Amino acid sequence: MSTIQLIPIGDLPEIAPGDNLAELIAERAPLMEGDVVVVTQKVVSKAEGRLVAIDATDPLSHKRLVEQESVRVLRRRGDLIVSETRHGFVCANAGVDLSNVEAGLAALLPVDPDRSARWIRDGLLARTGVAAGVIVSDTFGRTWRRGVVDVAIGCAGVAAIVDLRGTVDALGRELQVTEVCVADQIASAAELVMGKARRVPAAVVRGVDPSWLRDGSVRDEIVRHPSEDLFR
Amino acid sequence: MSTIQLIPIGDLPEIAPGDNLAELIAERAPLMEGDVVVVTQKVVSKAEGRLVAIDATDPLSHKRLVEQESVRVLRRRGDLIVSETRHGFVCANAGVDLSNVEAGLAALLPVDPDRSARWIRDGLLARTGVAAGVIVSDTFGRTWRRGVVDVAIGCAGVAAIVDLRGTVDALGRELQVTEVCVADQIASAAELVMGKARRVPAAVVRGVDPSWLRDGSVRDEIVRHPSEDLFR
Repeated sequence: MSTIQLIPIGDLPEIAPGDNLAELIAERAPLMEGDVVVVTQKVVSKAEGRLVAIDATDPLSHKRLVEQESVRVLRRRGDLIVSETRHGFVCANAGVDLSNVEAGLAALLPVDPDRSARWIRDGLLARTGVAAGVIVSDTFGRTWRRGVVDVAIGCAGVAAIVDLRGTVDALGRELQVTEVCVADQIASAAELVMGKARRVPAAVVRGVDPSWLRDGSVRDEIVRHPSEDLFR
Repeated sequence: MSTIQLIPIGDLPEIAPGDNLAELIAERAPLMEGDVVVVTQKVVSKAEGRLVAIDATDPLSHKRLVEQESVRVLRRRGDLIVSETRHGFVCANAGVDLSNVEAGLAALLPVDPDRSARWIRDGLLARTGVAAGVIVSDTFGRTWRRGVVDVAIGCAGVAAIVDLRGTVDALGRELQVTEVCVADQIASAAELVMGKARRVPAAVVRGVDPSWLRDGSVRDEIVRHPSEDLFR
């Protein structure tokens, strides 16, 4: 295994509906074969026009929107709603987000984040000739750990999960833990150079294991079906 | 924000109780001021002698050990036990692990992983003159997402959580999501160059935000108190 580099892609303009993210990224990041590009949900949602008006003076306005974006509410406490989205994500406030969005607007999650990742991948390929992996990331809390981390909500051209079943450890014993969520780990790694208070909504992750660069899908690989869920 | 590098530290010998991890790492990784060294729980537990005999022919032997290492069992399904450890971690099988350990032995979590990280940090400082941040990582599943990711179970000289409260986004609005778990993100990033089937139990993360290099504690910052827990 050799070194991996996490390279921020900064200096993007404020993104508006209809903007071509792939073009804006390609202009700023000289891509190489094997790169994975991580793009935050916020700019993807803006480019896709997933913005809705909310009444900032009415606290119920945000809450109604969160309920509308949820298929199931798991828990409520104070202003926090933990719910399941149409995509099968379980997260706070159904991913409805007010930060880094103009006052009076809220950003919804992309309709199909795997598809969003494919669009960006296709756009990058057309402009640069490089078939990069693409991950759309968002910031989620965790059940039993404080603080938030970035995870993958969509991917294309990169594995979501790498299955090590059948491989053996350094002592020749079969591994117990076999399914590693590389897409979430790549999203978390990229966040280290992005940050929430800076205008760095994308990063290049260079040097990942080439075997991870295959067709991938967050929906098909990461979203846990309620039937195998112990906590819903 | 500039580039971050994830550098694997390979070629460590098989670790035995009493081995000096800081020395073995310092010999293999030329450290620089500002580096964070991530070390997997497995080698920390081995060096600290946290190995116990189990009867591999008796399936109940592992299960009894898991129960003994748990203060509370949250869920059971088949061979899987999700429980809370003495440290307050909620994870599969109380962190008791059989992979990468000799047959007939199981590795328990370190007694105090923040202290383990401090010991390694002190050892690295004595040997190299560099006050590196240190994170002890382990591999955890997640409630609603398939696949495992590496998280921090102990840290020293690096923040576990960075609180962005009071900071504003690129549009001048106060951030909603304020507590970022940088230690877990650093652990996940490091796993990308370590892998479970290779003998790479440590990595250097070079180039993190210098403001993160302060006293940190997984126990005090990340472990969620049951009183603020919606799912226990």
